[in-house]
Amino acid sequence: MSAVEPFDVVDLIRTKRDRGELGTEQINWMIDAYTRGYIADEQMAAMTMAIFLNGMGRSEIRDLTLAMIASGETMNFDSLSKPTTDKHSTGGVGDKITLPLAPLVASFGVAVPQLSGRGLGHTGGTLDKLESIPGWRADLTNEEFFSQLESVGSVICAAGASLAPADKKLYALRDITGTVEAIPLIASSIMSKKIAEGTAALVLDVKFGSGAFLQDPARSRELAETMVRLGTDAGVSTVALLTNMNVPLGLAIGNANEVRESVEVLAGGGPADVIELTIALAREMLALAGQPDADVESALRDGRAMDTWRAMITAQGGDPDAALPTARETHVVTAPRSGVLVEQQALPFGIAAWRLGAGRARKRDPVQHASGIDLHAKPGDTVTAGQPLFTLSADEPERFARALESLEGSWRIGDEGDEVLTGGPLIADRIGS
Amino acid sequence: MSAVEPFDVVDLIRTKRDRGELGTEQINWMIDAYTRGYIADEQMAAMTMAIFLNGMGRSEIRDLTLAMIASGETMNFDSLSKPTTDKHSTGGVGDKITLPLAPLVASFGVAVPQLSGRGLGHTGGTLDKLESIPGWRADLTNEEFFSQLESVGSVICAAGASLAPADKKLYALRDITGTVEAIPLIASSIMSKKIAEGTAALVLDVKFGSGAFLQDPARSRELAETMVRLGTDAGVSTVALLTNMNVPLGLAIGNANEVRESVEVLAGGGPADVIELTIALAREMLALAGQPDADVESALRDGRAMDTWRAMITAQGGDPDAALPTARETHVVTAPRSGVLVEQQALPFGIAAWRLGAGRARKRDPVQHASGIDLHAKPGDTVTAGQPLFTLSADEPERFARALESLEGSWRIGDEGDEVLTGGPLIADRIGS
Repeated sequence: MSAVEPFDVVDLIRTKRDRGELGTEQINWMIDAYTRGYIADEQMAAMTMAIFLNGMGRSEIRDLTLAMIASGETMNFDSLSKPTTDKHSTGGVGDKITLPLAPLVASFGVAVPQLSGRGLGHTGGTLDKLESIPGWRADLTNEEFFSQLESVGSVICAAGASLAPADKKLYALRDITGTVEAIPLIASSIMSKKIAEGTAALVLDVKFGSGAFLQDPARSRELAETMVRLGTDAGVSTVALLTNMNVPLGLAIGNANEVRESVEVLAGGGPADVIELTIALAREMLALAGQPDADVESALRDGRAMDTWRAMITAQGGDPDAALPTARETHVVTAPRSGVLVEQQALPFGIAAWRLGAGRARKRDPVQHASGIDLHAKPGDTVTAGQPLFTLSADEPERFARALESLEGSWRIGDEGDEVLTGGPLIADRIGS
Repeated sequence: MSAVEPFDVVDLIRTKRDRGELGTEQINWMIDAYTRGYIADEQMAAMTMAIFLNGMGRSEIRDLTLAMIASGETMNFDSLSKPTTDKHSTGGVGDKITLPLAPLVASFGVAVPQLSGRGLGHTGGTLDKLESIPGWRADLTNEEFFSQLESVGSVICAAGASLAPADKKLYALRDITGTVEAIPLIASSIMSKKIAEGTAALVLDVKFGSGAFLQDPARSRELAETMVRLGTDAGVSTVALLTNMNVPLGLAIGNANEVRESVEVLAGGGPADVIELTIALAREMLALAGQPDADVESALRDGRAMDTWRAMITAQGGDPDAALPTARETHVVTAPRSGVLVEQQALPFGIAAWRLGAGRARKRDPVQHASGIDLHAKPGDTVTAGQPLFTLSADEPERFARALESLEGSWRIGDEGDEVLTGGPLIADRIGS
């Protein structure tokens, strides 16, 4: 320990290891010392595993979040002529909701600054999906970002490195040390970025079920409550919806095909579940922005949301009319008998799409924009023997075998009257005032 | 994960994190992959914290020990004309027992190969103590080592880097990540080295109490039982004594002064507790070496043990007759009143000696061989107001203040009839067949 350091990191690790509580000054020092490299990765890895297994109290989670915000710059939207409201999803299979949602909300004169990430693992990344649009770019200068927020209203772009750098370093560490799924660490990671970003309001889509980050509804609820409290304490109006991720969202899982489905919703069509969740989240965002009675459905029907989408894509160099990439190979799975589709598990479909090339195994891997899965039936639908159930798409035909392997036992055709296993309604609960 | 690696380290971390059991092949791969640098320190740090908090089963501890042995070379004493028996102490304050014990046992024609370490923290290292003897050297070639075992019988020297290198790497990691005091990790660390060393028999001195590594007697017993099982399973005749480390062992705490006390014991004198433990451990070692009825006391009385000591020191370049270093400064603490010394806590005295310069804070720091503490009374002794209770020695007088600070409240003079707080007898139990 250097003479000028106020704490010994091994003492702090032992404190958490022995179920003690870390104080504000200790957490501030720990995050600062880790960001500047005084605390080594192996020491922080031991600390995060101790946090994973022994938890953190409310004040520790708050301190951790504030310390990560303080590790970098913060943004400020006070200069904008309109209110800001943001949305964050904890991620799921077929979750393309940000794509129709951001322009829909922006079409009501609200600024929607969506700083997004790329996908890692079976839940896709919003930027990966949008990059399937020819010409579209995720990296904007600060001027471009603010100018587009003012002119178009919605921006979906890559988060800069200057917001919460401690979180970036810590997230990369958690990813390789098996300490991702800890509520204090997830909550502080998400909320440090969102609070540093400077949004006035935030709607969280916290998923539970087989395709979600946290499968157990009780743990998802705890995460949602923790994040709503962190946001509220930091002066951000925060609401969370607890939503069901036992079944893929919509009919498209991938990148280009999810953009196609999003455009269908913006054109007033699309699958019922995608529409339902888009509208529910839009209502929450608009209510926080002072428009509790906004007629969200009509903005989808009358083309206002689509106009904002086209302006948003164009502003970021994309061509909203360009053809999206299609895969070189497809493989169709048909119904082996007539009946009712009673099961369609999100996680295996997410893994299958990932294996087809829609996701990446390592950070630097490219994604294959045309790879993915299109579903032709949803749980509860009546199917006829021989009809297509889903289509796998990939550029490399050798990918089909392993994708099909992960789908074994993941869907089932039953009889009329059998229980349909969806795990309950799409929107299970709402948390926030 | 490289295509040729059979496991994913994050999967293994998650398994242990979620209280699962690691299989033999997984543990073998993990230790091999860590030794060759494929598994990063931060990943192993997360794993060791998960092991610390969730424990390991019997077969996992056995597999871990065997994998660490397999990470390096093993030694073999079959070519020696005499049986081998070794001793290991988990470390305590004033624990110089190896110094009189090794030559005592060797004087019965038994080989005692003591591969020892240097101290870190408040428990001193055997090599540090011996290095206070002018000329003595800890590093021997393989030929010197075997030749001295044959001719003198006892060797106390530095362990080479080739035995259990995985343990060395893992121990250094545990030291900076707050994961030292985990029974599976301590047991596998000690036993991998001792089994790799090739001794036929092993006596363990497992300490409990305030000055020990594991303070709780129940945890020390668990550690002892685990190590005895590991040794026995590996074909090493293993016995453990559970010994009390609530009070410093003997009257000397330091380096040169502990050598002085050891020589007193070899000359047939010395403090009662040092004699008792030396004799008890010698009997166990000799019994395992086929001499259950050896007359250990007479070897101390008649000079045989002393002769072996002198031969051992001389063989390693030391002068057994040379004056040992003395400190430039001393500070005497006297009894504030007459009565009975009812308390003398091992840990504060160990920390005080360490602060005086007898121990090191970092691996590369030198120790000050003349620094330390000489006790003039033991718990239960009657003392008179004004008599010296203990003497602190250091080369740098500015060290006294912090040493005295750590001693505040660590000793107490009571009245005749007050309970003397020693925490029970010196040798609490024996484990092994």
